[in-house]
Amino acid sequence: MASDRLIVIGGVAAGLSAASRARRLNTNLEIRVYEKGPDISYSACGLPYFIAGSPREADALRVYSAEFFRTQRNIQVFTNHEAVQILPGRRRVTVVAQGSGPEDVHFTSLVLATGAEPARPAINGLDLTGVFHVNDLQAAIKLKHFLESEKPRRAAIIGGGYIGLEMAEAMTAAGLEVTLVDRSAALFEAVDEEIASLVEAELDGRGVRVCKGARAAGIFGDRTGRVRQMALEGAGEASLETDCVILATGVRPRAKLAEEAGIEIGVTGAIAVDEFMETSAASIYAAGDCAEARHLVSGRPAYVPLGTTANKQGRVAGENAAGGRARFAGIVGTAVTKVFNLEVARTGLSSEEARQAGFKIAAASVRAASRARYLGGKDILVRLIAERSTGRLLGGQMAGPEGVAKRIDVLATALHARLTVEQLGQLDLSYAPPFSAAWDPILIAAQEMQRELRR
Amino acid sequence: MASDRLIVIGGVAAGLSAASRARRLNTNLEIRVYEKGPDISYSACGLPYFIAGSPREADALRVYSAEFFRTQRNIQVFTNHEAVQILPGRRRVTVVAQGSGPEDVHFTSLVLATGAEPARPAINGLDLTGVFHVNDLQAAIKLKHFLESEKPRRAAIIGGGYIGLEMAEAMTAAGLEVTLVDRSAALFEAVDEEIASLVEAELDGRGVRVCKGARAAGIFGDRTGRVRQMALEGAGEASLETDCVILATGVRPRAKLAEEAGIEIGVTGAIAVDEFMETSAASIYAAGDCAEARHLVSGRPAYVPLGTTANKQGRVAGENAAGGRARFAGIVGTAVTKVFNLEVARTGLSSEEARQAGFKIAAASVRAASRARYLGGKDILVRLIAERSTGRLLGGQMAGPEGVAKRIDVLATALHARLTVEQLGQLDLSYAPPFSAAWDPILIAAQEMQRELRR
Repeated sequence: MASDRLIVIGGVAAGLSAASRARRLNTNLEIRVYEKGPDISYSACGLPYFIAGSPREADALRVYSAEFFRTQRNIQVFTNHEAVQILPGRRRVTVVAQGSGPEDVHFTSLVLATGAEPARPAINGLDLTGVFHVNDLQAAIKLKHFLESEKPRRAAIIGGGYIGLEMAEAMTAAGLEVTLVDRSAALFEAVDEEIASLVEAELDGRGVRVCKGARAAGIFGDRTGRVRQMALEGAGEASLETDCVILATGVRPRAKLAEEAGIEIGVTGAIAVDEFMETSAASIYAAGDCAEARHLVSGRPAYVPLGTTANKQGRVAGENAAGGRARFAGIVGTAVTKVFNLEVARTGLSSEEARQAGFKIAAASVRAASRARYLGGKDILVRLIAERSTGRLLGGQMAGPEGVAKRIDVLATALHARLTVEQLGQLDLSYAPPFSAAWDPILIAAQEMQRELRR
Repeated sequence: MASDRLIVIGGVAAGLSAASRARRLNTNLEIRVYEKGPDISYSACGLPYFIAGSPREADALRVYSAEFFRTQRNIQVFTNHEAVQILPGRRRVTVVAQGSGPEDVHFTSLVLATGAEPARPAINGLDLTGVFHVNDLQAAIKLKHFLESEKPRRAAIIGGGYIGLEMAEAMTAAGLEVTLVDRSAALFEAVDEEIASLVEAELDGRGVRVCKGARAAGIFGDRTGRVRQMALEGAGEASLETDCVILATGVRPRAKLAEEAGIEIGVTGAIAVDEFMETSAASIYAAGDCAEARHLVSGRPAYVPLGTTANKQGRVAGENAAGGRARFAGIVGTAVTKVFNLEVARTGLSSEEARQAGFKIAAASVRAASRARYLGGKDILVRLIAERSTGRLLGGQMAGPEGVAKRIDVLATALHARLTVEQLGQLDLSYAPPFSAAWDPILIAAQEMQRELRR
């Protein structure tokens, strides 16, 4: 009798978390991971740093090899193997390997970890030489080679989200003159305008030109097919000269395989899952950038593709695919990024997201010292968003030169625990002059919010 | 008719927080602060950094002047005025100013913020030239003058708590050879032995000699009354040569004034207060290092004298003394310190404290990367303590070269919210390669603890 077999489609964060967790719980299960690309188990979030030059080698971003999974975890990882069809009723996946015909493989349980793909804007010129995205390792390596061999002088980045901002820094560090084109009026829509304006000031101070409220209308090349110009709409000028274009216009879930198999797609466009990460098809799970997550503040399904969530969801999917019964609690939308010397972080709902979720909100911001000023402490901006009627914390954002990145996690934890702003202000947070002021900026922000709530 | 008058005894953290908060709520109240020493409103936690040489001037530690309080907040601050007696029934305080007789002052409400005093060990030689504590600004200035004028070569520090450790670094930075004498077998009893051993290794690596399980038995001087030798018990040797001695043997609450007035003293020896910071005497409040606080994990009264708690308690006492009705939630015992290049932090109960509080505990430790290793991330040690039967988080400790100080606040927040280790492992914590690994060390520690709890 054949043993049970778990198939995992996708070999980056969620897929390998799932496979590893399943193995830990069940030593008998046969586990196969099919990855359509050549790379597995690498830090996708590290790609902008590789472009910037640290680390120097792409290999530094790789975590584990297929060999490691085979010998250390008894997990078979097949790269360059694409799953092209799922037959949920027959519990089969059709897999196509490079250079060979399709093969039908039976599964007992299946984890979909197909990730996300770059959302390509509907403009002409995307096929010109010099147009890149950095959605996966191969794409980043191609860009790196281009930078080294062609030595472009100017870069245009389309999109002012996390990747766009990180790439603005990376391309500047790589020695290019950078223009960032973003369609929103405020840049970086993940945060409120007050925080976004600090990001813009930092970019400006570092020589990055920012075109807000502008749309890339087309990319034009020279006779050799190389990028030379980008047409703009809504900017102060009709076009800009550039030697390359980075697409950082976000991602969308790779859900087509699931959709074609009749698996339910959620309102966000990603694969719908329950708290066990199970899809509408029994024994078929989904995790990571292809799947939805419940937002613990809004209570609604959300699509926030991040590596941390991918790891956690993968772990839960893997446990359940191996016969366990783990739950994924949900997300609060925590994220942090570094834009040159500015740390920017957010968690929960932004003001706009909170309004859209139906909350009547109050917001308060303070500037307070990251640590003792006599030891060089600097101002950070802390912004809180709360429900006006109850004082419940709904979200928070921070920006500053230091002390932001992990401080946001206090607010993330408070959101998980559904703390009110009053409770937030009572937290017994750590203090020593090298690390904080006696009143942590979060506590000062909570006090300011309490004043705002009494208004 | 005379207006209401608030009297505050003590002009550092708790006292001035109380006075400022009272003023904000009540513009008519007369507010007087009596401080027995010459200094008000300074960072006591900054004293070791001043000794170390940064900041260079003691004035950098001062926050606000008496003049500021008088002109900006309409608060009268009297320095060198000692309150020597409280008559609760008659609502009077007897105050003695330097160079004048006692004066009886009537109050409507009173806040006791008398702070703490160094616990002096019962040994001979404490009056020799070269014996110091750093409990207040004047004491630190005296030590600083001694270092500059006498240029001592060697220092012995008695006590391996926060101040002892910070002073070991400060005196080393000031160019002295330092020996740290601590009576406990493990050094730094605030944390479990595993964390304390990292502290010891850091001290050792920086040339600080550590005598554990040793007691200072006496200090001996030369004919001019200057420190030359310290006798030891329980150490490998009977004595050590030294040019100065720093007493860092902890503090005890200054509760005598309250006790003599018939105000209830708690089991910890500090002034007993309710959640409104009110003492057993109506309209008399206590806050800061002279008062108890409820520990939210043990549910018991605790004495953890820290500046953060002093500020929060002062704020609550001030609000209520001005006719408000604020509550102080309690503490979870969060603290952080820097010992050379090692950040050490703790929150909640240590293993020993948890056992003493009657919990049957489980503990788990992990080493995990502070941030992406390809960007220079370093291992930090995270130790969790949980209740075995329920999985409730009881405490946590961390040590490492970076990324410890504010990360502990996630655990502090989790303790306020009474999260279980399973809930802790689900937290949506921030990730970007410069600031964290994809699995935050706290999440990895929570996973390890879940394994431990299943054993």
